[in-house]
Amino acid sequence: MSKAELLAVDWGTTNRRVYALAADGTVLATERDERGLLAVAPGTFAAEAAAIRTRFGTLPMLCAGMVGSAKGWAEAPYLACPASFDALARSLLWVEPGATAIVPGLSAAHGDVMRGEEVQLLGAVAAGLAPADALLCQPGTHCKWARMERGMVIDFTTCITGELFALLRSHSLLAPFLTGGVEDGPAFRAGVAEGLSGKLIAKLFGVRAAALLGRRSEADSAAFASGLLIGADVASQSLSTGATVHLLADPHLGCLYAAAIAEAGGRVVTLDSHAAFVAGITHIWRLADDRAS
Amino acid sequence: MSKAELLAVDWGTTNRRVYALAADGTVLATERDERGLLAVAPGTFAAEAAAIRTRFGTLPMLCAGMVGSAKGWAEAPYLACPASFDALARSLLWVEPGATAIVPGLSAAHGDVMRGEEVQLLGAVAAGLAPADALLCQPGTHCKWARMERGMVIDFTTCITGELFALLRSHSLLAPFLTGGVEDGPAFRAGVAEGLSGKLIAKLFGVRAAALLGRRSEADSAAFASGLLIGADVASQSLSTGATVHLLADPHLGCLYAAAIAEAGGRVVTLDSHAAFVAGITHIWRLADDRAS
Repeated sequence: MSKAELLAVDWGTTNRRVYALAADGTVLATERDERGLLAVAPGTFAAEAAAIRTRFGTLPMLCAGMVGSAKGWAEAPYLACPASFDALARSLLWVEPGATAIVPGLSAAHGDVMRGEEVQLLGAVAAGLAPADALLCQPGTHCKWARMERGMVIDFTTCITGELFALLRSHSLLAPFLTGGVEDGPAFRAGVAEGLSGKLIAKLFGVRAAALLGRRSEADSAAFASGLLIGADVASQSLSTGATVHLLADPHLGCLYAAAIAEAGGRVVTLDSHAAFVAGITHIWRLADDRAS
Repeated sequence: MSKAELLAVDWGTTNRRVYALAADGTVLATERDERGLLAVAPGTFAAEAAAIRTRFGTLPMLCAGMVGSAKGWAEAPYLACPASFDALARSLLWVEPGATAIVPGLSAAHGDVMRGEEVQLLGAVAAGLAPADALLCQPGTHCKWARMERGMVIDFTTCITGELFALLRSHSLLAPFLTGGVEDGPAFRAGVAEGLSGKLIAKLFGVRAAALLGRRSEADSAAFASGLLIGADVASQSLSTGATVHLLADPHLGCLYAAAIAEAGGRVVTLDSHAAFVAGITHIWRLADDRAS
């Protein structure tokens, strides 16, 4: 049995996942908890890292995600696109010299930022899950669309799709109509078709109007609204017919985005986002380690 | 001095405005308060009307707005577009026979609804403020764009622009960046230009990214975001160059929409929305009264 050599931490705002990795990237142990930034008091990140080492061993630790933001352990300046593994490995922020480092986020020239997703993106290519030239999509609260060329992240765009849906469902005048479930089906597909045709801001109220006019059951309204938003999200990419999108998503969101991308004429390849993260972080570590030795 | 003959009540969710009107539509007295639906317990609307009569006189009362919704005094079924003054006057819902009636809202064939705005729309034409064939815009929480032909409301669309801005400013991850003021100026115009070019869902996150990257001052971010949303709203109308938009708005929102419509190539005529409401409600009353007598 191989020995753990690296602790990789995907450390976000709400959640955190720790992986104990062998030198070849094999996952020997993993743990997910809710010790994201919101649960960690400023100044106590080092204590959190020490607690992780108590459970997994005294090993080097590489962290990625919002832990590198101004509200995290320490602010790791964004690396400008185009960004390669080499550039990331050269730009690690060592918060505990020789022991713990943070992978910086990326910035795009047109004015966009990411933290954490870059590890998955580069890892998907490093692991051979996606080709070196590819369009990748990472659905979520803030959905990222990234363009890879020669294995580098060339450019990316953020759609606030998941957040908008949550805002509408929790706080808007549409909220009373958005209590139903969201699954791929006729109501979701009808929303996607509307969303793909643009003018989102002029269509959201239709969710309420259709329910008031008895044209759509309230049970179907949330699926329709989700379709509208995901359709608008996919439309922002102006996919050409037959364009391949590599999707890094959990099964539920992955299924919804796959349906919307197919409606837009795209071809979907679904990737394992955990495998992509592990491949990415292992690769960055290896490059950084080579540099150090 | 002329005598009051009609009480007109613009009765919304949050606010209420009462007008005491002479037979010719002259406003003899007016009062605005916060006795909207949210402040009136179910079953007490008749008592509210009685209290209004105590202050303004025992006169016939015509109400418009959300008071005619399922959460108001009584539900007045939507009248389908195309809708004329005659049709509205024929469709009043008499909640106190011979004494108090509610003007129904309108529905649009493509799936949209309004309550209250129809009085302003038809009134703007009746008062000669807008021609019988016109495009009217009523900015607000839910901005309405209405197409009038031969003095009738043919079709309309709702943009949830004001509500989206409020949601983003109060509850979103962009909220910390949206504390500045919103005035017409370079930041607002930059947002309008982006909003007019479409893909709103892929641009909102840029508000945060630009602030994090130091590309836009946080003081300017709210104006930019407002411009993005109002630009997307105006873009939904696909205005042809030189198209005239008749704007029914308060001065602040009117100024912002006028700037965005001009950027989109449109020509703006600003109307007095109170005068339009009064002209509309007086006209409906006269038609209903003629019918009764």
